[in-house]
Amino acid sequence: MINNKQWVITPFLVFVLALVSHSATAADGSTVLQSGDFVGYSFWLISMALAASTIFFLMESMRIGGKWATSLTVSALVTFIAAFHYMYMREVWVSTGATPTDFRYIDWLLTVPLLMIEFYLILAAIAKVSGGIFWRLLIGTLVMLVPGYMGEAGYLNPTLGFGIGMLGWLFILYEIFFGEASKVAATQAPPAVQTAYMLMKWTVTVGWAIYPIGYFFGYLAGGTDMGTLNIVYNLADVLNKIAFGLFIWYAANEATAAKT
Amino acid sequence: MINNKQWVITPFLVFVLALVSHSATAADGSTVLQSGDFVGYSFWLISMALAASTIFFLMESMRIGGKWATSLTVSALVTFIAAFHYMYMREVWVSTGATPTDFRYIDWLLTVPLLMIEFYLILAAIAKVSGGIFWRLLIGTLVMLVPGYMGEAGYLNPTLGFGIGMLGWLFILYEIFFGEASKVAATQAPPAVQTAYMLMKWTVTVGWAIYPIGYFFGYLAGGTDMGTLNIVYNLADVLNKIAFGLFIWYAANEATAAKT
Amino acid sequence: MINNKQWVITPFLVFVLALVSHSATAADGSTVLQSGDFVGYSFWLISMALAASTIFFLMESMRIGGKWATSLTVSALVTFIAAFHYMYMREVWVSTGATPTDFRYIDWLLTVPLLMIEFYLILAAIAKVSGGIFWRLLIGTLVMLVPGYMGEAGYLNPTLGFGIGMLGWLFILYEIFFGEASKVAATQAPPAVQTAYMLMKWTVTVGWAIYPIGYFFGYLAGGTDMGTLNIVYNLADVLNKIAFGLFIWYAANEATAAKT
Amino acid sequence: MINNKQWVITPFLVFVLALVSHSATAADGSTVLQSGDFVGYSFWLISMALAASTIFFLMESMRIGGKWATSLTVSALVTFIAAFHYMYMREVWVSTGATPTDFRYIDWLLTVPLLMIEFYLILAAIAKVSGGIFWRLLIGTLVMLVPGYMGEAGYLNPTLGFGIGMLGWLFILYEIFFGEASKVAATQAPPAVQTAYMLMKWTVTVGWAIYPIGYFFGYLAGGTDMGTLNIVYNLADVLNKIAFGLFIWYAANEATAAKT
Amino acid sequence: MINNKQWVITPFLVFVLALVSHSATAADGSTVLQSGDFVGYSFWLISMALAASTIFFLMESMRIGGKWATSLTVSALVTFIAAFHYMYMREVWVSTGATPTDFRYIDWLLTVPLLMIEFYLILAAIAKVSGGIFWRLLIGTLVMLVPGYMGEAGYLNPTLGFGIGMLGWLFILYEIFFGEASKVAATQAPPAVQTAYMLMKWTVTVGWAIYPIGYFFGYLAGGTDMGTLNIVYNLADVLNKIAFGLFIWYAANEATAAKT
Repeated sequence: MINNKQWVITPFLVFVLALVSHSATAADGSTVLQSGDFVGYSFWLISMALAASTIFFLMESMRIGGKWATSLTVSALVTFIAAFHYMYMREVWVSTGATPTDFRYIDWLLTVPLLMIEFYLILAAIAKVSGGIFWRLLIGTLVMLVPGYMGEAGYLNPTLGFGIGMLGWLFILYEIFFGEASKVAATQAPPAVQTAYMLMKWTVTVGWAIYPIGYFFGYLAGGTDMGTLNIVYNLADVLNKIAFGLFIWYAANEATAAKT
Repeated sequence: MINNKQWVITPFLVFVLALVSHSATAADGSTVLQSGDFVGYSFWLISMALAASTIFFLMESMRIGGKWATSLTVSALVTFIAAFHYMYMREVWVSTGATPTDFRYIDWLLTVPLLMIEFYLILAAIAKVSGGIFWRLLIGTLVMLVPGYMGEAGYLNPTLGFGIGMLGWLFILYEIFFGEASKVAATQAPPAVQTAYMLMKWTVTVGWAIYPIGYFFGYLAGGTDMGTLNIVYNLADVLNKIAFGLFIWYAANEATAAKT
Repeated sequence: MINNKQWVITPFLVFVLALVSHSATAADGSTVLQSGDFVGYSFWLISMALAASTIFFLMESMRIGGKWATSLTVSALVTFIAAFHYMYMREVWVSTGATPTDFRYIDWLLTVPLLMIEFYLILAAIAKVSGGIFWRLLIGTLVMLVPGYMGEAGYLNPTLGFGIGMLGWLFILYEIFFGEASKVAATQAPPAVQTAYMLMKWTVTVGWAIYPIGYFFGYLAGGTDMGTLNIVYNLADVLNKIAFGLFIWYAANEATAAKT
Repeated sequence: MINNKQWVITPFLVFVLALVSHSATAADGSTVLQSGDFVGYSFWLISMALAASTIFFLMESMRIGGKWATSLTVSALVTFIAAFHYMYMREVWVSTGATPTDFRYIDWLLTVPLLMIEFYLILAAIAKVSGGIFWRLLIGTLVMLVPGYMGEAGYLNPTLGFGIGMLGWLFILYEIFFGEASKVAATQAPPAVQTAYMLMKWTVTVGWAIYPIGYFFGYLAGGTDMGTLNIVYNLADVLNKIAFGLFIWYAANEATAAKT
Repeated sequence: MINNKQWVITPFLVFVLALVSHSATAADGSTVLQSGDFVGYSFWLISMALAASTIFFLMESMRIGGKWATSLTVSALVTFIAAFHYMYMREVWVSTGATPTDFRYIDWLLTVPLLMIEFYLILAAIAKVSGGIFWRLLIGTLVMLVPGYMGEAGYLNPTLGFGIGMLGWLFILYEIFFGEASKVAATQAPPAVQTAYMLMKWTVTVGWAIYPIGYFFGYLAGGTDMGTLNIVYNLADVLNKIAFGLFIWYAANEATAAKT
């Protein structure tokens, strides 16, 4: 496991982006893509990274085959949907300077459930697992996403929406840290799958924390700078979509190599 | 069967959509995609979900292979055709606020027969079945669709068109609940295929009921709100196209796994 | 053969189209796609059906493999080229109401020879066949197509062009009904391939008859209604391109299943 | 070899084009695609034929596999690059009536070396061959192409550019008719590969002769009609790109069938 | 190794480009793509070459399979990302005559780390290698790229940015010439992989030198001609992206052939 850390490309991308975007605030208010619009750059960069990731996951899904292929195809669906939305969001940002919140939520409504399904799929690839894992994670996802959007769109008191969303997230974390899924991973998964599971669960903990933090600063704590908020969301998506997919690819690659 | 309910992603999507669209009426009359246009959002969301489903079904068709591959490819054709039309319908709605009824019927004229063929294909994948099943389902589809459109387009008395269409639908339901197809499924199909068959036939019952209900309220009972009608149709398509395809994928996945 | 008539989807589509287009004349003269422009609808519907057929034939070509794969790929080329031209023709029709005759001939110059090659390819997939079949069919195709266009474009007397074209068609019919190709099919082909050959030869007889009939009414018998002529040509293409490909797919599917 | 002349589709296309374009001169000076613009038709027809050929070669490359797959993929690259350029050239011609010479040279700079590599690849698929063949053909290609363009673009005396280019071509012909490549083909290739090699070398002789003839009439002999020149170049590309690829496909198909 | 130098297509392309672009300076200042705009031609030519290379690497990845498939897929990602950016850069250049520096850096931020990963992947395909190789190369890449951009964009003193970037490059060169990676290549790699490794490391030395030279002349030595700078960068990308990928393809092809 130490030797084949091919998935480490992702932290690198995150780091690069962090550097590239260090002065995103300065670009606020610009209405066209121009030298120095780091928010626009990050939309561009990530849309390309997502498109390339989609090709990568589809190709590796075909190469690796078997049960893991489904997991990798779902990773490709996540980056495909996100790449599409990022291209639209890039245009919205570049042409109007507005924050494309609606597109983000549409993206999340499709990609977050798919990411949750991945916990189930990687365990189903190596063991006989209960459908209860699947349902609990999906319901948690739902409780997390919907009230948040309703709060942002004004159909719910923002603080209440925020609170309910947090409970959904905590429920998901409980399941993957202490629930049935965590037990299956701990007792039946080969080492590479355990490593991937560990990275995935910490991504859901640390990587997903960026959204409520953004929500908190953006809508509760008196508003924040939109450029910074978008950079933060974009970085979160690199970790939560591309890196998350690469963790699964790592498990698939190692588990398949171990068999042959 | 309890353990591998991977197809449950669909009810989730339906539920999410139901929530997202709860206030679709409020958005009526808006002529551009703007924050709060939930009808436009649902067109967008479903067009992306259909595109992603198409990739999924094509990839899984290549992975699973054999006779099931044809069923999954046909599922992909359904979502491909629908994704294409949803993108056009989204544009029609967003730019004019008009209900794209014509595009829906063109879509249905292509996708509904393909969905009917799926009943035949999944049975043909596991047993020697009579071509009579195929023909009866196709003729039923035809009787269901064509008079309905003629009623909406004004070439037939709406009530008469509605009535004939309903008879076509009842004929289809008879075939899949009590006819030859139901007998093949009951006697020769392995458990996963039986489960899929059951879900598919109830989809045709409950999910397809949304169309005549929409037709009834839209054209017979004094007209209805167009935004609501589109949301209802969009939700129906999630169940009748994406979920329907996932039921088949579930059967294909289980039946293939059982062999190896 | 009775039991696996999966190719019957095509007559169904033809029938649906016939109904959809029953009042095509009424839509003549409209310059934008509007409710009731059935000619425009048929262009749209067929362009989508051709695109979906292309995906289907390519997927099935990859699944079935072997010598049949080439036949199915060529079927996909036919529907690919036609889908492309139908999208252009749809635009020409919708924006100008003009009949896109030039695009039809460009399409036919590419697709008709590919269809003729299919007779050769399906026989070559099951037996050792003479290249003479191939050459005779190609020369017949040429004699059929080129004078027709020259007549329509004004480079030849229309009646003379019509007559020469008819001779080319009769030559093709002779070859596939009584010539070497028919003998190979009758003596060496398995039942499913014989059925496909029979359906293909009658398609060339009945389905292709639509073109000279349209030509006759359009250019010889004092001109005809352009909307009706386009509907007739569009219906002919459904039979001659999509159904023709499905006949080949039927033979490929049955012949492959028989081996395993 | 007599029996499986599936590659004969190409001469047919050439012939059809020859007929279609018989009155190309008459269409000169037209600035929009209109009935009778046979130059525009030939750009359109060939762009579609190239796109379809690309799909065909990629599908057959996947089907046939092994060493031949690389040859077929390279054939697909040639038609892919040419299809792309033909679509641009078609637009240039239709919208301005100008001859898109620059696009032709960019196309040739990419596709001609790829075609030369094919001689090497088909021999490498059946025998152990010297890299010297590869290098000599590439250098000959270079000497042929670059001075020609410099002459047309005005960076070199046209007659001098023409002369040097001719020497490069003669050097290539020497290699494939009498050099090491010809000896490998004559002594080690199975019959189908020998046939393909023969057709390929005569294509380079006769088919490529069209370019210097066009160059001679276009730039040396006092200028020529641009419509005619483009038709001649377009016909040459059908032979030199599509037919050339079909010759290789013929060899691949026969050599693979012979093994199984 | 002498006999199968199929990868030599790349030096050829470089040479052709060198000739094509010999008078790039003359085209400076032109605002539309016109005869003689060799900078625009080189953008065009390379965008097409990158697109074709992407198809080639994806096809060969599927053909060759196994561990090498991942390396070839990553090569395809590099050319895919670059093809996309070159098409945008071409448009920027042709429509404004401006140098698209921002797009180049976005491209490099994605492709250079992927190229570095290739050193790791080709060694991992033939031996058990330490993850330290991976991390050292990535960190070197980062130190090389980021300060360079900060210098160009004005967030850092250009000379300082240049200096730090050079140190990152030297660190990379140390690793691949004398570090752990070089030892694995020297002791465990089969001959073809050693050849590829050698070509790759010299590409990183000579090919990458073009960037600091361009940077030096462009931003430090009093500014330079933008047309020449772009030609130089474009040529560097042909070597560093297409040729680099072909070296890996050469190793994959030879190592796979040796096994069978």
